[in-house]
Amino acid sequence: MLKYEEIAKELEKNISQNELEQGSKLPVLETLMGQYQASKSTVIKAISLLEKKGLVYQVRGSGIFVRKQKRKGYIRFTNQGFSGELRDDKITAKVIELDIRKPTQEAAESLNIDLDEDVYYVKRVRYINGQTLCLEESYYNKSIVTYLNNEIATNSIFDYISEALGHKIGFSDMYLHVNSLTKVEAEYLGLQEGEPKLFVETIFHLNNAQPFDFSRVTYNYQQSQFFFQSTGYSM
Amino acid sequence: MLKYEEIAKELEKNISQNELEQGSKLPVLETLMGQYQASKSTVIKAISLLEKKGLVYQVRGSGIFVRKQKRKGYIRFTNQGFSGELRDDKITAKVIELDIRKPTQEAAESLNIDLDEDVYYVKRVRYINGQTLCLEESYYNKSIVTYLNNEIATNSIFDYISEALGHKIGFSDMYLHVNSLTKVEAEYLGLQEGEPKLFVETIFHLNNAQPFDFSRVTYNYQQSQFFFQSTGYSM
Repeated sequence: MLKYEEIAKELEKNISQNELEQGSKLPVLETLMGQYQASKSTVIKAISLLEKKGLVYQVRGSGIFVRKQKRKGYIRFTNQGFSGELRDDKITAKVIELDIRKPTQEAAESLNIDLDEDVYYVKRVRYINGQTLCLEESYYNKSIVTYLNNEIATNSIFDYISEALGHKIGFSDMYLHVNSLTKVEAEYLGLQEGEPKLFVETIFHLNNAQPFDFSRVTYNYQQSQFFFQSTGYSM
Repeated sequence: MLKYEEIAKELEKNISQNELEQGSKLPVLETLMGQYQASKSTVIKAISLLEKKGLVYQVRGSGIFVRKQKRKGYIRFTNQGFSGELRDDKITAKVIELDIRKPTQEAAESLNIDLDEDVYYVKRVRYINGQTLCLEESYYNKSIVTYLNNEIATNSIFDYISEALGHKIGFSDMYLHVNSLTKVEAEYLGLQEGEPKLFVETIFHLNNAQPFDFSRVTYNYQQSQFFFQSTGYSM
């Protein structure tokens, strides 16, 4: 882990351990530089990392402040997958299909691979505290996600990718649609055909910017309250 | 505008004018430092500003690269309001209600004000290229948004707030729900009762972190394809 990541981790620990409220002021740059024996640019990188994570915000000329989520019980939209964000909730999954196949046109384009390259295709229903959360179809670039099996797919595939395969997950592009459930989707989710659904297609990239996962997820609207932080910028 | 903002603006102009594709490499820090006669930390701040805006991504040890949206016709979730993101589309609005009143409990909490303080309440239907986009209810802290009228509310209130009132818009917290349209909502949007809806509550902050707008927006699902970029981080 690089210096600025360590500093960010330290600050994050500090915020949670001291249960700092939204608006709590962090030490000024100079203090942090001294405290962590780090250069100005290193501390700035640590702070913008925390800013990206929505844990702090910076007020020009005034300082760095703690940022907190106002409401509870919302799933945070994130590029780290669900489980990472739902440690308090029990996330399980039932694998419906898992095989190696050729990508669809859309999957190939999203993953920047050719139609004749292999992908791991995983179709599963995910549950939150025993209730259906979503129906997920994922296409993993097999040259990156070199191995998957049912047991792995029953748990967090992202944990496996980062911990077992050692990949670092980077940014993601999400495309949201709202529509009505088809008969088949409704059956998987235990809902009625025609009930509303949130449909999210996501292209997940490694932190070297290579797309590794294209997922198409249909959410159970009854379970889905999403929280989404947008970082401020002024231009 | 501060130095790092100018640099970011220059780089942004450069990216769009030269129509740089996703993956195009930007000059290394040192080059940018020389090019703009700026310190390392200033250039880093400019880059993370562009990163926040989803225009570039950084690959450790490899450089800074252009980030592009793969799909067209999606509305970008942003903290700058719609119009800022939809310059190519014609966004209009019909004001249904506009008055000064006391906030609801929820609005007061979201805006961190007392129940006896004044807010501007605006209810309007917004149109994209002549079709209903959403039904919006907004509560503006009157001590920040000191004046509003129908003409302003018919156009972009955010443009007015930043340009006429000179406020800088900061981060926002969004809470998404998916549900079915009520009869009243359906009438405003020209849809049928029971059709799906995306319902988004947002707390908008100034860049001094003061909440100034609490909005409750019901989207026409037929018009609503949302794009949402999540910035990568690795911890």
